[in-house]
Amino acid sequence: MCLKLLPASLSSRVKALKVLAEPDLIRHHTRKWLLNSQSIGFVPTMGALHEGHLELVRQARKENDQVVVSIYVNPLQFGPQEDFSKYPRTLVADLALLEKEKVGLVFTPSDKEMYPEGFSTTVKVTGSLVKGLCAAYRPGHFDGVSTVVAKLLGAVYPTRLYLGQKDSQQAAMLRQMILDLDLGVETVICPIVREYDGLAMSSRNKRLTLEGRKIAPILYKALKVGKSVYELGEVETANVLSEIKKVIQEEKKVKLQYLEAVDSKTLAPVERIEKGTMLALAAFIDEVRLIDNIVI
Amino acid sequence: MCLKLLPASLSSRVKALKVLAEPDLIRHHTRKWLLNSQSIGFVPTMGALHEGHLELVRQARKENDQVVVSIYVNPLQFGPQEDFSKYPRTLVADLALLEKEKVGLVFTPSDKEMYPEGFSTTVKVTGSLVKGLCAAYRPGHFDGVSTVVAKLLGAVYPTRLYLGQKDSQQAAMLRQMILDLDLGVETVICPIVREYDGLAMSSRNKRLTLEGRKIAPILYKALKVGKSVYELGEVETANVLSEIKKVIQEEKKVKLQYLEAVDSKTLAPVERIEKGTMLALAAFIDEVRLIDNIVI
Repeated sequence: MCLKLLPASLSSRVKALKVLAEPDLIRHHTRKWLLNSQSIGFVPTMGALHEGHLELVRQARKENDQVVVSIYVNPLQFGPQEDFSKYPRTLVADLALLEKEKVGLVFTPSDKEMYPEGFSTTVKVTGSLVKGLCAAYRPGHFDGVSTVVAKLLGAVYPTRLYLGQKDSQQAAMLRQMILDLDLGVETVICPIVREYDGLAMSSRNKRLTLEGRKIAPILYKALKVGKSVYELGEVETANVLSEIKKVIQEEKKVKLQYLEAVDSKTLAPVERIEKGTMLALAAFIDEVRLIDNIVI
Repeated sequence: MCLKLLPASLSSRVKALKVLAEPDLIRHHTRKWLLNSQSIGFVPTMGALHEGHLELVRQARKENDQVVVSIYVNPLQFGPQEDFSKYPRTLVADLALLEKEKVGLVFTPSDKEMYPEGFSTTVKVTGSLVKGLCAAYRPGHFDGVSTVVAKLLGAVYPTRLYLGQKDSQQAAMLRQMILDLDLGVETVICPIVREYDGLAMSSRNKRLTLEGRKIAPILYKALKVGKSVYELGEVETANVLSEIKKVIQEEKKVKLQYLEAVDSKTLAPVERIEKGTMLALAAFIDEVRLIDNIVI
């Protein structure tokens, strides 16, 4: 099974890296580490790796004896109108990046391994964490995420799980799921990594046109304006959000999907901005959906 | 936390037994065993232990280095009209029985430990396994079972899980859940243990009146008649079930809830009885709900 997805030309270059597609084989390795009292940091990804992912890997490397990365574009978490088929897939480049980061084990299951015939279990988080923000616009998305991550945790059984703050709602939900299911895995949420011009790193950035890429930093710029407005004394949510919207509306190509001010822990909407409030948005540019957030 | 639920008089008698209420403490112990390469057999129960449970414990003892038993009457798996408050609770006697079986660790969480404020995760199995039989009459029951067992497995992280064939649908569903979530736990399903007169052992038998207890063996007797009818050459499901019903109707106090012939693996209804068919029923006697089954 090892290296089965790699073209022959690459397999020699990445021989330090174990690439496995079957949950049982992954468990076989991680169980050995566990029996040797080695801690395991786990970074689940959908591939198309960028510096944001690599920062998670580096953090995991710093805090654990072993690092496992999964690469799997999970069909369960895409709606029928969403970009599953267009999601960037760059496995060869991804593996080269992970080799550089000295990752020991990469889990690259196929749909057949993840959802074989007869598969019939869903892990679902309900409540305020999955009410607003992305959940309001992506029905079923978070059920797909919680189910796949529960499976990945089942196979890897890590000490720590590394998630990015860009997907803040996903991270909050998964932390709750891990608590609720008594999995005993520590959730580590790492800061957003940005491009030189402030755009939050995302695999979807690859799908922007040149023009779209040029205007995309407006999202972060607008969030920073919101933060400044608050720092200048404005605490009414409506007023702060209105200032953010004004900035975004300067760019006609940006279609705002939502802009919310929520408590960064509970994700419940707040009427007044304060320390710990998260300003979060989703917007379409070139029909590519981008999200970003800033915590005050 | 240890022994906190025990009256002082008992705590000296069961000192070989560790009784813990918190998932993190359970994990602390089982993780130590895991690191010592010891296998762990796990028997989840709702207490009111009888020979059926003890046979699971003995099987677990035979096949593993360590045995963990949980005792928890899970509110999530009882419907509003069901017998949650009337379910027998006999913790002191249960612990004495488990001590005799040399169980090392008993997990006795309270509702607060299992479902603290903010708890919001459900593990749900869908599909043919949870369509007919008990699932048709107990909406939400199996979601409660899968959720609590996912949690228990999260805390205990056993090598093998021991379940009884009496709760055949529960066992089939949990085996599927464990497969689907890649938990790497082996599911061991043990045969039904019966009283001297054939009644399937159940904690609910304690709730029968003397008269109800006398007539209750009719359920197994009827299932055996069904099996005999098949062995004599009748394979039409309708005819076999009709013969079983005739037997049950001899006792006016028995209210049959369902009687089905299903494939014992998929639990899908079958039109013709054959090897591997399970005849299963649920019935009320004295308003106590009893289930039983027989695999051909």
